[in-house]
Amino acid sequence: MKHSPSRGIVPRTLKISVAACLAVLACTSHAQSRVTLFGAVDLGVRTVHNDAGTNTGMYSGNNYTSRLGLRGEEDLGGGMKASFWLEGTLNADTGAMPTQFFDRRSTLSLSGRMGEVRLGRDYTPVFRGYATAEVFDFAGAASMTTLYSGTASTVLSRAFKGKTSSNGRTNGSVGYFTPDSFGGFYLNAMVSQSGDGNVSGDFDYRGLRVGYNKGPLHVNAFVGTTDIKPVGDNYRIHGAAVAYKASLAKVTAALVDMRYQDARQTNYTLGMIWPVGAHEVKATWHHIDQAGKAANAASIDANDADLLAIGYVHNLSKRTALYGTLAYLNNKGKAGFSISGATPGAPAGGSSRAAEFGIRHLF
Amino acid sequence: MKHSPSRGIVPRTLKISVAACLAVLACTSHAQSRVTLFGAVDLGVRTVHNDAGTNTGMYSGNNYTSRLGLRGEEDLGGGMKASFWLEGTLNADTGAMPTQFFDRRSTLSLSGRMGEVRLGRDYTPVFRGYATAEVFDFAGAASMTTLYSGTASTVLSRAFKGKTSSNGRTNGSVGYFTPDSFGGFYLNAMVSQSGDGNVSGDFDYRGLRVGYNKGPLHVNAFVGTTDIKPVGDNYRIHGAAVAYKASLAKVTAALVDMRYQDARQTNYTLGMIWPVGAHEVKATWHHIDQAGKAANAASIDANDADLLAIGYVHNLSKRTALYGTLAYLNNKGKAGFSISGATPGAPAGGSSRAAEFGIRHLF
Amino acid sequence: MKHSPSRGIVPRTLKISVAACLAVLACTSHAQSRVTLFGAVDLGVRTVHNDAGTNTGMYSGNNYTSRLGLRGEEDLGGGMKASFWLEGTLNADTGAMPTQFFDRRSTLSLSGRMGEVRLGRDYTPVFRGYATAEVFDFAGAASMTTLYSGTASTVLSRAFKGKTSSNGRTNGSVGYFTPDSFGGFYLNAMVSQSGDGNVSGDFDYRGLRVGYNKGPLHVNAFVGTTDIKPVGDNYRIHGAAVAYKASLAKVTAALVDMRYQDARQTNYTLGMIWPVGAHEVKATWHHIDQAGKAANAASIDANDADLLAIGYVHNLSKRTALYGTLAYLNNKGKAGFSISGATPGAPAGGSSRAAEFGIRHLF
Repeated sequence: MKHSPSRGIVPRTLKISVAACLAVLACTSHAQSRVTLFGAVDLGVRTVHNDAGTNTGMYSGNNYTSRLGLRGEEDLGGGMKASFWLEGTLNADTGAMPTQFFDRRSTLSLSGRMGEVRLGRDYTPVFRGYATAEVFDFAGAASMTTLYSGTASTVLSRAFKGKTSSNGRTNGSVGYFTPDSFGGFYLNAMVSQSGDGNVSGDFDYRGLRVGYNKGPLHVNAFVGTTDIKPVGDNYRIHGAAVAYKASLAKVTAALVDMRYQDARQTNYTLGMIWPVGAHEVKATWHHIDQAGKAANAASIDANDADLLAIGYVHNLSKRTALYGTLAYLNNKGKAGFSISGATPGAPAGGSSRAAEFGIRHLF
Repeated sequence: MKHSPSRGIVPRTLKISVAACLAVLACTSHAQSRVTLFGAVDLGVRTVHNDAGTNTGMYSGNNYTSRLGLRGEEDLGGGMKASFWLEGTLNADTGAMPTQFFDRRSTLSLSGRMGEVRLGRDYTPVFRGYATAEVFDFAGAASMTTLYSGTASTVLSRAFKGKTSSNGRTNGSVGYFTPDSFGGFYLNAMVSQSGDGNVSGDFDYRGLRVGYNKGPLHVNAFVGTTDIKPVGDNYRIHGAAVAYKASLAKVTAALVDMRYQDARQTNYTLGMIWPVGAHEVKATWHHIDQAGKAANAASIDANDADLLAIGYVHNLSKRTALYGTLAYLNNKGKAGFSISGATPGAPAGGSSRAAEFGIRHLF
Repeated sequence: MKHSPSRGIVPRTLKISVAACLAVLACTSHAQSRVTLFGAVDLGVRTVHNDAGTNTGMYSGNNYTSRLGLRGEEDLGGGMKASFWLEGTLNADTGAMPTQFFDRRSTLSLSGRMGEVRLGRDYTPVFRGYATAEVFDFAGAASMTTLYSGTASTVLSRAFKGKTSSNGRTNGSVGYFTPDSFGGFYLNAMVSQSGDGNVSGDFDYRGLRVGYNKGPLHVNAFVGTTDIKPVGDNYRIHGAAVAYKASLAKVTAALVDMRYQDARQTNYTLGMIWPVGAHEVKATWHHIDQAGKAANAASIDANDADLLAIGYVHNLSKRTALYGTLAYLNNKGKAGFSISGATPGAPAGGSSRAAEFGIRHLF
């Protein structure tokens, strides 16, 4: 063995390589089987200036969430397929993985001519719905997740009390997806019971999404209901989103409405992606309209907010890109939404401005 | 790069595939080397009805424990081999991995004509022993682990005080396995010292297993001793198990005896696996006989229990199966064993009933 | 499917293999891409005898830190390359991975003719500097990390108050490395801001290393400054190290100086690696010279220490080795350094002796 003083920090030539781009080896016993290791490392520097202060630091996942995953499928014959998908968030700035390791998705599916039945932790139909209009991939300073802040949103903080809401994902769910054979029409339904060890709180979830995705047009409507079991009231979310891919650019729009007891929030979204060769310009505008009452019965009608962002992506290859984003969030009334990254957050009625740039690499 | 609004939730075609069923590429420098990534995703729905209440939810690992692992071996020449095995439990309903990530096994071995020396976290000889008679793979409603409940078993709760017992695995162990060359006879020994960072408590473990496994017959006897160091007393477990593979079905039986101070538990097990083409019927009966005294000196002679279960497995392929299990547990006296999954557990002397069905996929 | 009673503990033949030693499959779309899975499992038994007591147990990573990693690179054309490196410590005796999963390194790089820009969690230039003189790979009883004990070192305990120091790695860093084209000369610089979620405390780091590495000679000098932000004072470390690979053996030496307020520590190191065929003898001597004052204003001038160690490695292959190490640490004055592994540690002015042997396997 060759010894070098740097051996402690740079492992010697690694003899076992896990690699086979596109080339999945055929196997005699189950020819269609494959397991794929995939991921993304995205690191950048972001400066967030709130009225209350400025903070600059390195952040993971600004253009695309850094992640690590494993997925595979097996052809069972007769048009049937079994597949699994395990995917977790990588905090690439520190190397940490979440406690709920595969927090992004952990599913097992059986698919056939009748569609796909999917079990486990998965995205809700509602999230898949409003994702249609998101042009910043739920990542970075311009992420749509800012609209769904569990503390700044009165509806969400009243319903979920600081715990993760049921908007994005649920544990222990049963989902159904129609097959790709209805001329572009599709349906996705999900139920998730409590008693499934859901870390996001004790609730029952039901969600439904119907859509049409063919040629340049993708349009869908979605609804979700969450029974907040300790209270007995329902948190409801519904909306519609559309994306249209024109020759020059793709444009998107969405309208999402969330309600709990006497609080309500409506999110209006416009988005655009304009690709020019290796370059790409993205822009979005979100308007948050709150109405009704806070937990202390004060009116939240004036607590609205707007988030404007523009992004530029320079693709060095299909997998690697440089990017930069500018985002501006303006609160009205006593709204306190803020762009992720500054401590403390934007004060009530204040604004939040951010600039970020970085590198994104997929594998 | 192709952009779609669903990019945030469905990573684009993954170009790096980790896959090579059976086909392990030869390497000039160490031709017999290989690293294998493996795992299982098993998700199902279970309803448990105890006299105290009913609970329904999704559970991971009912037919086969969901897991993720990495193992490899290297031919060192001269009949010698180095190998490692890292394997952790996957909670597929939430995506979580345990704090002790590779909690199922984390070992390094040197093997040769004289047998195998194995270091690390591994199964005890006793566990490998009674596993001979387990037909439900220590998974799901009918799992044999119910008999070894750290709270319901008086022996185990007195010896290990709610911490994980030494029955299943120990950290930092040194194990020995005879080679496969003694006409079916084998021996497995293990020692594990405290001071090894054992999360299961401060104890010294010694275990031994001898057996014969050839043709249709597998029979073995096993013994384990654990020095509960803060107390100074020994927890002892010993037993024997047999499995016989007849033309029609496999039948198993075991007798396991556990003692600590003046408490004692004896587990009687019968099992059967009856394969019919792609189908498989499994059944088991366990009787738990407690004797001696509880920590408060009360007699536990009457605190016995029985667990009856029947399972059906429909194999869709070698890797994927649908399954269903019915289990019934009946406590006598003040015994409080219960099938995993219902909160609260079975009351003293009460019963516990469960039904589960789901999908299991290996990769 | 073949069923055996041991199915619960020994997964059936694993059909998906992740393996391709040296042979990385070519891909049409990005021919130079590859992802490599790598790691090490190293387990051994260590006895540490301090004046205060003796402890024997199994330890992970005595010859080489047990680890698990994933790295990859992509050729972007024009001499440019994108690459990532994710690597975490494996506690092979228990199977645990750290909370900060990829705690050893989590980086994304862009490289070209102008050098490499690297983002993320990485080794500091100072660590890479003094690593030049370390012959025991920062692992086991003879590890150089003993000199940098956060509790025994007065400088480090005053500056970092028990938290991990900035000597080894920093989160959220930006680093620069010159290309391999300056006739052996190289430079490495790093900055890391607070606000990056650094778990090691709230500090700003700046480090620089310059060196010459060509033929048998490797020499370098390095300096690092850490602004301990809550206090406002700077912790400073600087030094130089050399390694010379003669025909018979490699010899190394280093001098490292650390200062904070009125405390100072100087580490003198000599090392040697003497390879003889499959065998290897290693030896090191470290002298720790403390000067100035403790937090309570008491003089620490007399609190010096020496660490002497000799190691033997028998390489069974390029990847697998047996090893044994003897180490002796002697404290003077009220110094309390001790070899890792004994509880309690060496008393003030006492000594610490250790013997360890084990197996190391790379994959």
